[in-house]
Formats: sequence, C-alpha cells, structure tokens
Amino acid sequence: MAAVLLTVAYDGSLYSGWAPQANARTIAGELLGAVRAVDPGVREVRGTSRTDAGVHARCQIAAFDPTREITPRGWALALAAELPAEIAIRSVGTVADGFDPRRHAVRKRYRYLVLRDESRDPFHERRAWRTFHPLDLDLARAEAEALVGTHDFMAFRSVRDQRVDTVRTIESATWTTLQDTPQVLAFDIVGTAFLYNMVRIIAGTLVDVARGRLAPGAVARALASHERRDLGTTAPAHGLYLERIDLDVVPDDVWPL
Amino acid sequence: MAAVLLTVAYDGSLYSGWAPQANARTIAGELLGAVRAVDPGVREVRGTSRTDAGVHARCQIAAFDPTREITPRGWALALAAELPAEIAIRSVGTVADGFDPRRHAVRKRYRYLVLRDESRDPFHERRAWRTFHPLDLDLARAEAEALVGTHDFMAFRSVRDQRVDTVRTIESATWTTLQDTPQVLAFDIVGTAFLYNMVRIIAGTLVDVARGRLAPGAVARALASHERRDLGTTAPAHGLYLERIDLDVVPDDVWPL
Repeated sequence: MAAVLLTVAYDGSLYSGWAPQANARTIAGELLGAVRAVDPGVREVRGTSRTDAGVHARCQIAAFDPTREITPRGWALALAAELPAEIAIRSVGTVADGFDPRRHAVRKRYRYLVLRDESRDPFHERRAWRTFHPLDLDLARAEAEALVGTHDFMAFRSVRDQRVDTVRTIESATWTTLQDTPQVLAFDIVGTAFLYNMVRIIAGTLVDVARGRLAPGAVARALASHERRDLGTTAPAHGLYLERIDLDVVPDDVWPL
Repeated sequence: MAAVLLTVAYDGSLYSGWAPQANARTIAGELLGAVRAVDPGVREVRGTSRTDAGVHARCQIAAFDPTREITPRGWALALAAELPAEIAIRSVGTVADGFDPRRHAVRKRYRYLVLRDESRDPFHERRAWRTFHPLDLDLARAEAEALVGTHDFMAFRSVRDQRVDTVRTIESATWTTLQDTPQVLAFDIVGTAFLYNMVRIIAGTLVDVARGRLAPGAVARALASHERRDLGTTAPAHGLYLERIDLDVVPDDVWPL
C-alpha cells in the first residue's frame, strides 16, 4: 500500500521538539498517537527535520505506512479531530511504500523572527526573540551575504553534531522588516541542508554583530578558522520556524487540491 | 497621590474577559492581583472597555490609585515580574487622583481578523475567525461604508445591552488584506463609542454578505428598521482585538519615553 505523506504545521512552544521521547510531549509523539487512533497498525511516523524543543514549523513533512485504505481527505479530517490545536495537518498525499522523506529533501527554508520591543508583547511571546538593543540591519545583511555559497560550515554547529561532512550550500540569506508588524525583523535562509543548531547560531551571530557586541566580519572569520568561538550567541529556539521543505518527488492524490 | 495609568496588551484566549468574576480567571483580576502584590493598599483597577471572554487587546487602558510612591518605570518592571505571559504592560504614566478612564475615552479602534484557510493554522488558532468560504471583499467594503457617520445603531447590539441612547458615530470602517499573511483579512473600525457586541455583530454581518449568505444592503436595512434580525451572525470573540483608545487627557511621566 502507498505511504501517506503529511505536511504538518505546529506551534512548538509547549512541546519537547519533534523526535519522540519517553515521558515528554513531542510533535512526532502526538502525531503518531493521532495516526494510531485511526489505524493502530502504524508503527512509526518518519519526519524530515528533527526540530528542537520550542521550534515552530509551517511545513514539516512526515510519512507513514498505513494498514487501512483511507483517502488523503479522510486522513486529513480524521487527524484534525485527533490532534491538539497547536498541531495542524496542512496537506496529505500519497508516495511510494516505505518512503523516507529525509532522503528526498533537496532544499529547506528557515525563518528566524526578531522582535524589537522595550516591553513584552503577548502576541509574539514564545514566537519571536525579543531584544531592546538598537540593531544595525546593514551590518546584519553584510554578514548574511557572506554565508551564501558552498562552504565548510564546521564552525556553525553544536558540539552535539558529530557529522564528518560539514560542507553545505546556502542559496540565500536575507533580512526583511515585516510590513504589518514593522517591529518584527525576519531572517530567511535557504539551503540544501543544515547542521545541528546552524540556523540558531547564524541568527544569534548576525544579531550580535547588528547590536555591536561582535565585530563585523564574524561569518568570514569563522568560515576560515572553523572555530565556533569566532561566532556569537545561539539564538533561542522560540524564534525559529521551519518554513518549507522541497522534496525531489511529487506526491499523488494531494488534499487539498 | 496621582493615579497610575496603564496601557495593557493581552491575548484573551484563556481568560473569561476583562471584568473581575468570582471563580474565573479574568484580565482585570490578574492585573489587580499583580498590583496588590506590589501595593496591597490598592482596592480596584478601573478599565476602559469591558472586553468579552476570548477578546484580545493591544492597548486596553486602566487606572488605579496607589498608596506607595513608585515611579512609572518601577511599576512597569514590578508588574512585568508578577503578570502571566499573556498579559503585558505596554506603558505606564500618571494622571489625576481618582481618574476613571471610561469617562475620558473619546475614540476607540477595533480590529477583527478573518483567516481564509481550508485547514487549521496553529499560528492563528484562537486569534482569527477561520472560514473556508470564498469572500467577496467588494461586497464587504460596500456594507462597511454604510456604517460610517452618526446613526442609531439600536439593531447592532446584544439583547443584554439595555442602554437608552443607541446613537453612535463611526469615523471609518475598512477592510485590508494583510501584507505578510495575505490569507488574513483585517476589518478596522474607528468610532466614538460602541454598543455591547456591536463590532462582532458588524463583522459577522459583513462576512455573511461577503460569502453570499445575506443579501447586500443588510447594514442599511438594519439602520432603518432597528431590527437585529436584519443583520447576520455575531462573529466569534477570538477574532476581535481592542487596538487603540484615545483619551482626552495626556498622562505625565510616561514610561517608556
């Protein structure tokens, strides 16, 4: 039977990240629970990106192998009834049996939101990183430009990431001021793949340079030195959004049309 | 001693509205608790608009009479430490002893958010009214224009509103598509004062006309007939935001500058 491919959006504020854990509420754990409420034969839900605790997603992609014949629309309605309000199924399609979306991701887009505000804003609480420091956006943009291209990003990862190949390609890295909420800055980065904590280290470094806490040129220095200490703060998880994942396959029977 | 004037923002999702109630979590109840944690001599917090359960505010205005000498900045910091994340003090100033902001409100602005989406969106859950019906914005705009001016809005209120004078002045009523999130429509209405449920009845009626459920001209018919039945649905509370209140006085010593 064909595998089911889901696009999932979630507010990660109250969850311990994507990956299932014993004794913790996780996105994949809630999703598997909802799928198994409909089809108890399902053993696992395979995600594409293991987002950290507090990180949000507008389009995580996940797949599972059903044991019951249910249409994509049927899955969408059934899962909507089972899932908590913070997790939503945005689309459902079918792909080949056993499909593992991690092996088919060719491009990812992340967004990091920075709120410039002197006092708390309940509508951005846990959804943007608040700072009251003046930020020089030109400096942040110059650092962002230095990221674009194919580089060894060894410096740009958590010590928990032990992968050998640290060469990645960044296609674009831009800062914009949101039109409807000009107190919010959005940093958008598109690349083929990312190391662990890479986007949060980049966002924290660019904000550190923009507020004058780190000398301009930090990105270039770290690309040359491969030293994490040439970079800045790891920005907090709650400002990060997994915005989009491009796969090298197109699912069938997609709901909604 | 001068009264303290607060501008308060809140996500009303989890609260039973502004006005204090026994055995229910309310915004004014939380605020009074926070103020009394700092100054136990305070007896009441006087709000300007009694927002309903689920309604949000970006700038509710409230006042209280302190018994301790604390600067506006001192109040801001102390209350920030006491209040839950959904309630934030945006500014603090001082006004005349005994000041009642209800008597000094000369203009209010409300915003109603409509999300056009086929599936749930966790980032707008409880913060916008979701509909999957196609909406004709030209029809909604024509109804909105009919509201502008000084009219007897007797039809535009809940049966729980028993006030005798139902003449109000609407200065503007407009629909816009948000730039950053074009799936969200914002209805903005500015007036001198509003009847109970008036903005929610207006928003529901305009959406009913825009989706073809109610014949165009509903606003004009209800202004002439004074009959609630000529209007549409009362839109749900969770799409409504109290955006701004203009007072006829300017507070002193305002924090932040």
